[in-house]
Amino acid sequence: MSQQLRQRLFDQLDALVLIDPHTHISALDPASHTLADILGYHYYTELAHSAGMPREEIEEPGLDPREKVRRLIENLGPLDNTIQYSWLVEMAQRLFGFADDRVTPENWETLYDAALAKMAQTDWAQQVLKTSRIESVFLTNDFDDPLEGFDTSVYIPCLRTDDLVFHLARPEVRQRLENATGISPASAGDLRRAIGALFQHFKSKGAKACAISLPPDFAPSRVAEARATTALEAVFEGRTDAGDAHRAALSRFTFWTLAEMCVEFRLPFDLMIGVNRGVYEAGVHQGRDLYDSRVSLIQYKELFNAFPQVTFPISVLASVTNQELASYAWIFPNVVTNGHWWYSNTPTFIEHDLACRLEAVPRTKQIGYYSDMYKLEFALPKFAMFKRILAKVLAERYVIDRGWSEERAVEFGKQVLRGNVERIFMMH
Amino acid sequence: MSQQLRQRLFDQLDALVLIDPHTHISALDPASHTLADILGYHYYTELAHSAGMPREEIEEPGLDPREKVRRLIENLGPLDNTIQYSWLVEMAQRLFGFADDRVTPENWETLYDAALAKMAQTDWAQQVLKTSRIESVFLTNDFDDPLEGFDTSVYIPCLRTDDLVFHLARPEVRQRLENATGISPASAGDLRRAIGALFQHFKSKGAKACAISLPPDFAPSRVAEARATTALEAVFEGRTDAGDAHRAALSRFTFWTLAEMCVEFRLPFDLMIGVNRGVYEAGVHQGRDLYDSRVSLIQYKELFNAFPQVTFPISVLASVTNQELASYAWIFPNVVTNGHWWYSNTPTFIEHDLACRLEAVPRTKQIGYYSDMYKLEFALPKFAMFKRILAKVLAERYVIDRGWSEERAVEFGKQVLRGNVERIFMMH
Amino acid sequence: MSQQLRQRLFDQLDALVLIDPHTHISALDPASHTLADILGYHYYTELAHSAGMPREEIEEPGLDPREKVRRLIENLGPLDNTIQYSWLVEMAQRLFGFADDRVTPENWETLYDAALAKMAQTDWAQQVLKTSRIESVFLTNDFDDPLEGFDTSVYIPCLRTDDLVFHLARPEVRQRLENATGISPASAGDLRRAIGALFQHFKSKGAKACAISLPPDFAPSRVAEARATTALEAVFEGRTDAGDAHRAALSRFTFWTLAEMCVEFRLPFDLMIGVNRGVYEAGVHQGRDLYDSRVSLIQYKELFNAFPQVTFPISVLASVTNQELASYAWIFPNVVTNGHWWYSNTPTFIEHDLACRLEAVPRTKQIGYYSDMYKLEFALPKFAMFKRILAKVLAERYVIDRGWSEERAVEFGKQVLRGNVERIFMMH
Repeated sequence: MSQQLRQRLFDQLDALVLIDPHTHISALDPASHTLADILGYHYYTELAHSAGMPREEIEEPGLDPREKVRRLIENLGPLDNTIQYSWLVEMAQRLFGFADDRVTPENWETLYDAALAKMAQTDWAQQVLKTSRIESVFLTNDFDDPLEGFDTSVYIPCLRTDDLVFHLARPEVRQRLENATGISPASAGDLRRAIGALFQHFKSKGAKACAISLPPDFAPSRVAEARATTALEAVFEGRTDAGDAHRAALSRFTFWTLAEMCVEFRLPFDLMIGVNRGVYEAGVHQGRDLYDSRVSLIQYKELFNAFPQVTFPISVLASVTNQELASYAWIFPNVVTNGHWWYSNTPTFIEHDLACRLEAVPRTKQIGYYSDMYKLEFALPKFAMFKRILAKVLAERYVIDRGWSEERAVEFGKQVLRGNVERIFMMH
Repeated sequence: MSQQLRQRLFDQLDALVLIDPHTHISALDPASHTLADILGYHYYTELAHSAGMPREEIEEPGLDPREKVRRLIENLGPLDNTIQYSWLVEMAQRLFGFADDRVTPENWETLYDAALAKMAQTDWAQQVLKTSRIESVFLTNDFDDPLEGFDTSVYIPCLRTDDLVFHLARPEVRQRLENATGISPASAGDLRRAIGALFQHFKSKGAKACAISLPPDFAPSRVAEARATTALEAVFEGRTDAGDAHRAALSRFTFWTLAEMCVEFRLPFDLMIGVNRGVYEAGVHQGRDLYDSRVSLIQYKELFNAFPQVTFPISVLASVTNQELASYAWIFPNVVTNGHWWYSNTPTFIEHDLACRLEAVPRTKQIGYYSDMYKLEFALPKFAMFKRILAKVLAERYVIDRGWSEERAVEFGKQVLRGNVERIFMMH
Repeated sequence: MSQQLRQRLFDQLDALVLIDPHTHISALDPASHTLADILGYHYYTELAHSAGMPREEIEEPGLDPREKVRRLIENLGPLDNTIQYSWLVEMAQRLFGFADDRVTPENWETLYDAALAKMAQTDWAQQVLKTSRIESVFLTNDFDDPLEGFDTSVYIPCLRTDDLVFHLARPEVRQRLENATGISPASAGDLRRAIGALFQHFKSKGAKACAISLPPDFAPSRVAEARATTALEAVFEGRTDAGDAHRAALSRFTFWTLAEMCVEFRLPFDLMIGVNRGVYEAGVHQGRDLYDSRVSLIQYKELFNAFPQVTFPISVLASVTNQELASYAWIFPNVVTNGHWWYSNTPTFIEHDLACRLEAVPRTKQIGYYSDMYKLEFALPKFAMFKRILAKVLAERYVIDRGWSEERAVEFGKQVLRGNVERIFMMH
């Protein structure tokens, strides 16, 4: 009974056309060109590396795409249990007519060629979006992205601010800021004006969000402008006393200024909380980050209180932080739950975390899912995974446990999948 | 099969008459007078506020109850997914003959009037208890409560001690202590005598427990009397050096003294661990508290070792602390698991936390549930929620997974629901 | 449907002959002599004590085994809900022909005598292994164990190193080290040579792993040899300045040296992370340890990066650390998930933790289970518990949710149960 019920709910949820509210798509090159773009996704390279494949084989300079795929396929056997592997198979089946349930050294080349032919079609990106029932995707744009040459109603700009908050000490980041804004930040006031100019630019191009990922020990607080100027001078001059305290003060000032600009420019501020960068030094590209799950949203108390006008869609890296997220969204009007991020983007964690949110957070304050993808082909299998789990939770915990009608459950699911994205990011 | 099994187990558990071992009921005014008393429960006001309803609309001074209900009902749509909303509907159906599955701007007034008529009956509180199959409820009494004018066999006194431990620095709290005991605490010895007098009074009125809620950073330890006197003098005199260290020492001394009195007066000491008060400053009444889930029961090591004669029924605010609670109850004879508190009182957390306790903690050391209610009408839907989950876990993890007979499962469930409450709080 | 599916998967998994990769078996006395050896297991004594049985009744010196069993049986009623109790019953049924579902004051003596007769047979240990389908078990040997008098192909040596890392300050530990190696460690270099001699001895006797349990606050790092010599001198001379810093430095140096020896001798290094020893001072033997679940694998960042050649099978004590473990195993090639340890070795935690690992960690990097037993009789019920949960997760999350064939699911389960143990510990 439950399985048919789940299928019925899934079918209705799956019929919906969605907006993907967080991706790393390049608007100028959104889809893949060969299967190497698919298998080069860090989920495959890092898992293959973790299972024993040398990094040098994966990241050999000038490696031919077909050879890269051949090598990776030969190392995917140890991963064929993972949900990430299932994304590959489902994508291959749905987009490239693949008929098997595993990609092997025997059958990969046919798949490679089928994908190559599809990907060569000029409207491939549009085909993928249509088949995936995705109407638009949020980007993750560098602060100095010109945001030109693409349709911003399909590829929606989003201002990513990690560099500003955490790497402003680097000369090249300052130079990029100066190039983008014409302002050389010699004081906190200058920095504020430069950041304002970035927001002005992004807003004029239709940006719908500001976003940042944050390490577990970050705790935002207001920093006085004079203190920020002192910190900025010390950090920029590379003075020997420009220690951690100055860097931290400058980070906090910049972060706080971003929140202030979100007020002024009416943008939600996506916070992605919990990542430690570069934990595994010898890892593959994008396969070096991990975390310390000992993080608490209490670190954001001052922020949430200071900015009631800003909506904070929040993602947490570890499932153990999910209850805090649900509780903070239950209490703070400006806190919204946002998707299932990275190491928590696997079925058992999604199922648990989603169920906890669905039953305790107002239905208007839950953004169900984003793909986090780098290439458009991944939206289909990732959203399919989420929709299956959503259908399962709605079936088991609403229709069965609480006696809801299927219509009511589907209506709730649709709001979480799409309605809230439109409203929270003010898409219209 | 499993659904019918769950129903059979539920029906048997539901037939039991229960004692509610933790509530905030006012013994002199235990039931609601209008639906505003129901909808004024912080779960509804804080969720409505979180979903966008201005605090001023909810907390307008002198607001008419009917108007308050009208306003809140208009703002409940965004919460109709929550388990808290389901409590309202189930209560309305079972106590007031409500026939719909949602309370809306169209149907609320009929419900309001039906409830008003019922609540006006002089024996309404007794009717609610009877329908809810609750025979008595524990109170949460201020330390200076006279405990007079009610039947202490139905409304069981419980000494709440947050003010003593955390707010003794406030002149009004000291004044209340002096008024209640006739002792002006000029020294640690005086304070101990005053606390002893409170216990004497409560015990003479049939109190069955001492209780306190604790912030996540609290770590009790023994404080020498001389040190406590120094702290007390500094804190009470408001001296400029009465900093955090003195306050913390006084808190720890008072807490430790409470535990000593629990030995002397043979009372269990309910610890409710993990809440941070006032995190959301602009929140509605009772909707401002949150938490930092980074808490450990290792902070209570010294306490548990020092007081083997005291039973500590322990509630934790975050589900991530539940495994520690189960493990500490598995090892320490004086640690008992107690209910599912506040932000962990939603089905997915209850199901996980309950299952973990049932299979690892001696059956005699688990207090299944308390309602934490402010008005009697909430016992029915809250206990119903718990009993459904208990039936589900017993069905799936005992009858199906472990081959238990239904009788054996029900017997276990009944012990957790009622038998342990009687024994642990020495009700007879 | 699902229950029959689970049974079919279980039957196939259960047919496999296994290697138990972590136990506390004494190779010279591996099986029980009376039921007192079974009921003396700390899981029963500590739970009975927690439920109210005085320690003196359990640990009375010179207590007759039959009387000890009688006393414990009379105190098992409050535990008959626990999974630990179910191990006892399943073992009694499968090994001793017990026909009831509870061991009571009425039926225990028949069981006692039946067990006594079986245990008196000279080949009892072999019988138990055969019935349990266990072909060999890893030991937990003191560093000065002579490793003689037993078949090391069945009882596989494993070098346990807690004493070396945490108790080298004790004169008796140093004496044991000197006796075992002939080296009196007067410097860090001496200590390294002594440790090398231990590895040489263990390796020559067929040891397959080095192992240690670690407190939650331990964070390994490299310590310079000169610093280590200073620390060693201070600690060994018992100087008054041999404070925590010196002890910690010596611990870290010794630990790091063990990892270096694991490189040299090609041994995996089992890390069992999270235990606090002696939390409950008045507890029964082995029933005093608990934990602080606030631990992170980020504490092991330097270690994992420094020793890419060493495989670290890792067990975590608390389920809240399981996601970090899965994530670190997903990224670091040298991190492997290892079993379900102690307070996380109960069905609800196993089910959640296992599901998370199965779907995100390469299938080659997961060691499914070890028994941690002290007597051979426990392998059967403990592994049976795990195999039932494994069958449940494979049935629900692979065959049903992901459409896997039963054959594919069983093949995966077998790798996790046995194949990985052979490969990771280089058994051939």
